[in-house]
Parts: sequence; C-alpha cells; structure tokens
Amino acid sequence: MRGEESAWFGPCYIASKALMGVLGDAERNSLHKGDGRSLDHHMESVGIDMASVRAGKPLMNTDDILEYIELHIEQGPLLIGKDLPAAVVSGIRGNFRHNAINCIGEPGHSGAVPRAFRKDPVLAMADLLSRLDEAWLSILQKGGDLVMTSGVVHTDAEKNALSRIPDHVDFSLDIRSQSQETLDGMRQMLTDEMAQISRDRKVEFELDGANVTAPALMSETVVTGLKTAMERLGLEPMVMASGGGHDAAVFANAGVPSAMVFVRNRNGSHNPDEAMEIDDFLVGTSIIYEHLMGEQDREE
Amino acid sequence: MRGEESAWFGPCYIASKALMGVLGDAERNSLHKGDGRSLDHHMESVGIDMASVRAGKPLMNTDDILEYIELHIEQGPLLIGKDLPAAVVSGIRGNFRHNAINCIGEPGHSGAVPRAFRKDPVLAMADLLSRLDEAWLSILQKGGDLVMTSGVVHTDAEKNALSRIPDHVDFSLDIRSQSQETLDGMRQMLTDEMAQISRDRKVEFELDGANVTAPALMSETVVTGLKTAMERLGLEPMVMASGGGHDAAVFANAGVPSAMVFVRNRNGSHNPDEAMEIDDFLVGTSIIYEHLMGEQDREE
Repeated sequence: MRGEESAWFGPCYIASKALMGVLGDAERNSLHKGDGRSLDHHMESVGIDMASVRAGKPLMNTDDILEYIELHIEQGPLLIGKDLPAAVVSGIRGNFRHNAINCIGEPGHSGAVPRAFRKDPVLAMADLLSRLDEAWLSILQKGGDLVMTSGVVHTDAEKNALSRIPDHVDFSLDIRSQSQETLDGMRQMLTDEMAQISRDRKVEFELDGANVTAPALMSETVVTGLKTAMERLGLEPMVMASGGGHDAAVFANAGVPSAMVFVRNRNGSHNPDEAMEIDDFLVGTSIIYEHLMGEQDREE
Repeated sequence: MRGEESAWFGPCYIASKALMGVLGDAERNSLHKGDGRSLDHHMESVGIDMASVRAGKPLMNTDDILEYIELHIEQGPLLIGKDLPAAVVSGIRGNFRHNAINCIGEPGHSGAVPRAFRKDPVLAMADLLSRLDEAWLSILQKGGDLVMTSGVVHTDAEKNALSRIPDHVDFSLDIRSQSQETLDGMRQMLTDEMAQISRDRKVEFELDGANVTAPALMSETVVTGLKTAMERLGLEPMVMASGGGHDAAVFANAGVPSAMVFVRNRNGSHNPDEAMEIDDFLVGTSIIYEHLMGEQDREE
C-alpha cells in the first residue's frame, strides 16, 4: 500500500481509499506532475482493477481485516517534550481549512484618516485571530482538543505601503480537532465573529470554500490492546491525538478496527531535518508485536 | 518654493528645509531617479547658494516672515464627512514609524504541534496589534489625538503554507499624534507589550530603527486669525489636525508663526481619484484673503 501523501499527484490516502472504495473522481483524474497522465491511467497500467475503483466498490472485504495498525513518526514535538519513545494514537484530528479568507477594507492615508472613518482590514484580521485564539485557550482549559493556525498572511504587495491603510489582507485558516462538535462550534464562532467585526469595523470578509475532513476515532479495543502491550513492556502507556491525517482514518471510517503507534521524532515533519532514532522505531514495532502476540495468546 | 514631496529624489520639504537651514546631508546626497545626479548638484545648477545650505545656514531671515500660511487639500475624509468646504489646521501630527517589525516564531505542522509547544508569530502579531488598537481607542475616549496603521503584513512567501505554523511574519507600523507625550506613551507601550508577548508566546520581535518626526503645533495667533476670518465669512470655523506632514511644520519648528487651511477633497490623496471642487478651493483662498485683509485693517 502506498500514496498516503503523493507528491506526484496531490491527493492523499490513494491506496487506502481505493481499497475501501472511496477514491473520488477528482482524485482519480488528478494529473502526474511529470508526464501529465491521470492517476487513474497510472493505477490501471500497474494492474489495479479500476472498474471497481471507479464504481466505488471496495477492493477488499473489510470483514477480512482483523485490525488495521499503522506505525508512523509523530509529526509534532510532544514525545520529545515528554521524553517518551512512542505513544498510541486515540484519534485523528479532523479539520476545516480556508486557503484564503479575504478581509476587504478601504485604503487611505495612514496619517490623515481618523479612526471613525477607517475601514482597516489588518486590524480587523488581528481582532478576529485574537478572538479565535482566546476561544482556543478556553476550549483547552475545559479539556477539549483543538489546534489553530493562520500560516499565510499577505497584504497586497502591489499596493501596500507604510503610510497607507491597506485595501485588503488575505489569510489562511487551519482549524483541527478530534471532536466534530468542537469543529462545528469553531466554525459557528468564526461566522459569528466575522459578522460582528464586519459591523464594528466596516470591513467585509470573503471566504473561499472550506476544505473539510471529519475526525476519525480509533478503535477503543485496539487502543486498549496497544496500551496494555506498552505496560507489559514496561513503557509508560502514553495516548495522544494525531494532528496530521493518515490512512488509518480511511480504514477507521470504513468500519475497520484501527489504531496507530507514533514514534518519537525530532524537528517536525516534511522537512530535511526530521530525525527518528532507530531504537525508538524498534520500541514502536515491539509494541505492535507484543499486542499481536498477546491477542494470539488470548485467542489460543 | 517646491519639493514638499519629491518623486524624483525621495526627501520631503526640500525647499522649506533649505530656506530654514535644515536640509541634511542624506537629503542633499539623494540621487535623481532619472539621471542619477544628487539633489545638491541639481540645486546648485539652478543657482541656489549651496555653500550656505551645506553649512546649515538659513537662506532667509525668519524675522522677515510675518506669517507662513499653507493652502492644501485635506488628505483624509473629515471635511467630506462633515460636509464643510474648508478648515484651519491646529497642528501637524508627528510620528514614529517602523518599516518592518519582524516577529520570529518556530515553524511546525499545523495539525501536530499542541498549543503549549507553539511559537506562532502570526498570533503574536495579532495579539500585539489588538492591544495597541485597544490603547488607541482608550486614548481617543480621553480626548487624545492618535492614528495607527499596519499597512504592510507578510509571512515568508517562500516558506508559508496553509498547514505550517509560519517561521516569522513582517509588519510595518505607523503611529502618529499631535502630542509628543502621546507618541512617547505609545512607543513605551509598544516596547512593554512586545516584551510581555515575547515571554507569553515564546516569540521574538526584531525592530528596524524607528523613523521619528516631531509634531508641529501651529501658531495660536494665526489659527485664531483664520478662524475669525471664517466666522466673518459666515463659515463654520472648523479646526482639525493634519495627519500628513507639510512644509508648514518646517516653518513652525523654525519659529515662524504658521498655520494651514485645508480644502475638502474626495477619495483620499496620492492617487488618481483625488478630487477637489474649485468652489471649495475658492473658499480656502477667501479665508486666507479675509484673514490677511483683516490684519491689515487692524494695523492701519
């Protein structure tokens, strides 16, 4: 199985989606960056039953899968921070993401326009992000799960200047949680706060269509099995959320009992400095081995 | 007198500064965008006594100037908003300005890094701008004079992405007031808030050198004279601050009794849509004429 993230084609979870019968048309029609041919063409050329894939028919029977367990580096710093080699994943955060929210104000002379006459999109954006940031903190304080990022922020490079109230500002928003309820709440809050700020600051917000992924809960049975295995191995049975998406979410959402084991990894992910110790990797594989052998013992 | 703003050379107030003996070396050495020759060279070639200018000697005796009165379009929307043709200017806002404040955080996966491990520069910037914005509102509520603008905001276009906590964000800051005390207070607040946010959010702020201009108060005698002239003409004696800088500030700071008359102007300034009605212009000149004739009457 391959293609959890495909640099050639773009879509994620290619194999797991094909296996579970949920690889969509847009994904199949995505083009290879090198030869310009579609993913559908490439999959067919290596012998995959694309008639079934196109018809949305699973390529394997989910009843034949006892458990799906995925071993992966942690893509965040939690295990480094806690000085633990590995952890069991309890769920995969879903998200809603906007590539570009455009806050539109009105340009003007930075010195000459009094506050009451301004429509300043940058201060409106700062206000919005600060309100969402406060909500984030309060959700965490109540024990909720949430991360929020505005990774791309730009005023109009052609027009912006030190002494000019900017025309508009574009910013991205990526909000993730293990809880669909929390995601829905944040989405409602985003709508409400934008409406209030639009009224108060006389700006407009234009949103591109949200990219939405549902959270995926891991199987309690498999998570408990892996935790128990960690305890038998003398490890601290650390359980955590996954912030990135994984094939495990596709299997879990198809009804296969699924879970993941994360291995400690330094310097984040998707960059040349990501670094895992092979000893930690072996701890990860031992947890899975111990879990599977333990199940076999119990079954015998 | 010309060169209040010079598109060819860059510096402002070229003539007024030369007349008052305060045209600096950097300004004199600025190069013409067309022929690459210095402002000093060009001024000398049209017969200006550059030896005096270089020595910082005024080209005219300030005692010979009874009053300096400048007629200018308003560069903001106040007169349009109040439906008045003209106003007297009570003072010219000074400012401190940073072309680029760099807020440095730490990149990371937008989904995988928990809040407690983040060093998010965009949320830190949003927090800072929101705090300064609140201070602005509170200064206005106490009757103070202030405007604040962050006109240029950019994450790193080479590295930024929807699903990446950004490395850093650059933003400009332009803070202006008629009161030096208010400017000093805002500058201290900027320093204090950056220190607190750096501690709380584990980011760093790097500032370029501030560009500083002192506020210039107009002469109370001249302002009163112009106000009285407006009343005699049956006009509402509107008095307001100037947000942009003007030659009048150079004369005022050299001890010449100075003031300005602003003429109503639509669509801001420094853009092709700026629009003044000629009737409003004539109101402006009438105010100055009435004021000068009134003085003459009193002297006779």
